[in-house]
Amino acid sequence: MKPSVSIAKIGGHLINQDEELKSFLKSFAELEGLKILVHGGGRSASEISSKLGVKVNMLEGRRVTTESALEVATMVYAGSINKKIVSLLQAFQCDALGVCGADLNLLVSKKRPIDPIDYGFVGDVEIEGVNTQRLEQLLNIGAVLVFSAITHDGLGQLLNTNADTIASILASAMVPHFDVSLYYCFEQEGVLDGAGNVIKSMTKNQFHAGKDAGSIRDGMIPKLSNGFGAIASGVKEVWVKKASDLGRVNGTKLLSN
Amino acid sequence: MKPSVSIAKIGGHLINQDEELKSFLKSFAELEGLKILVHGGGRSASEISSKLGVKVNMLEGRRVTTESALEVATMVYAGSINKKIVSLLQAFQCDALGVCGADLNLLVSKKRPIDPIDYGFVGDVEIEGVNTQRLEQLLNIGAVLVFSAITHDGLGQLLNTNADTIASILASAMVPHFDVSLYYCFEQEGVLDGAGNVIKSMTKNQFHAGKDAGSIRDGMIPKLSNGFGAIASGVKEVWVKKASDLGRVNGTKLLSN
Repeated sequence: MKPSVSIAKIGGHLINQDEELKSFLKSFAELEGLKILVHGGGRSASEISSKLGVKVNMLEGRRVTTESALEVATMVYAGSINKKIVSLLQAFQCDALGVCGADLNLLVSKKRPIDPIDYGFVGDVEIEGVNTQRLEQLLNIGAVLVFSAITHDGLGQLLNTNADTIASILASAMVPHFDVSLYYCFEQEGVLDGAGNVIKSMTKNQFHAGKDAGSIRDGMIPKLSNGFGAIASGVKEVWVKKASDLGRVNGTKLLSN
Repeated sequence: MKPSVSIAKIGGHLINQDEELKSFLKSFAELEGLKILVHGGGRSASEISSKLGVKVNMLEGRRVTTESALEVATMVYAGSINKKIVSLLQAFQCDALGVCGADLNLLVSKKRPIDPIDYGFVGDVEIEGVNTQRLEQLLNIGAVLVFSAITHDGLGQLLNTNADTIASILASAMVPHFDVSLYYCFEQEGVLDGAGNVIKSMTKNQFHAGKDAGSIRDGMIPKLSNGFGAIASGVKEVWVKKASDLGRVNGTKLLSN
């Protein structure tokens, strides 16, 4: 029997709410078995950027990671947010180790091609870039990994990577040696239908139908794409759920068919 | 025979010089055996603070770490500087893992008493606060540790700690299981005498004499105090030297008597 590992991803909204974050981390600390937390941190980075006078460049609706923007992302994600989470988890007796992709070469990404659009210092990750041997080694000595969404190209360049994608890729890469559960945690109860009710379970076809109908939109689309990608790779279960429901069987469960 | 471990400490000046930093990291990557790098990062934190409008409070000539100053220190030291170093070391085939004291509870400090002077979120470290078991475990799996000068109290509070002291305390704590060499690396050739020549070796008595005569002053005093503290704890050799001389037998060697 393969050991179980839980991978939870939390986003910017939760990270900015002190009490909610603590309450989530307490539930995360109480989860049984091996575990990994992946965090984003969008809003804080935007606030710091604006204070530092780092302009947010947008191209076709997507953010461009300039050199200054990358530095801010590294400071905020890998620095203040990551270490705050680690320190809080330690206070809950959870032996956290904060990492980015450069640490022990855990996650090597490829700088996105500049053609047709140059998004700057953005790194795309694939399963091949995951150092599963090191991940296993760290989990086996009892480390609870806390991943910030910064990766590197292995040649000395840090890169900004989407946190939802990191969670999905880590989960997929670990399938050969673990029973993996993946939890996308955010502020809503799960994926909502047009009437605002939680959809208890969802297949990929239903996802595409919801997308076409416009009931699934914005940030939920990449989250679900990543979630279904993990399902396709053999991840045992993928949930989209409210952060405060981490330990409970609530939310939207993604189904393979 | 005990295994050897090298601990090198670098400061703010080097960190701000891209080419010098790369050249130092290349030499560090080439050092044989187990190793740990400890870094400060003073100047960058001051620049970011001033851009963010975080005031630098001074009390009796010493910096006060307010809540905002701690956040900046965590961003800059544990975030941008730490991950930049890790990524560069990885490019030199050195399997770096960036950590602060909160990670795996590696270094627990005590918040400095607020009486007679409240220095804010400053943590003092002692040998008892070093998690030598975890340090050994990480070194034994081949990790090269890169320490930022952020620690924590184990109760969820990050704290700002002097990087020179961290290097000395880590070195001292590892003496029972390792032959430890400690290198304080900076921009000068070593400790200089009144005429500006490098002092090849120095005892504690000579240090006190130089201090009384005024030839040893400012930042060199705590560096040497920490160095002699390490010597007293049984650290095999302690050097104060130019960063670019890391691999060479140059600089000032501290002697036990």
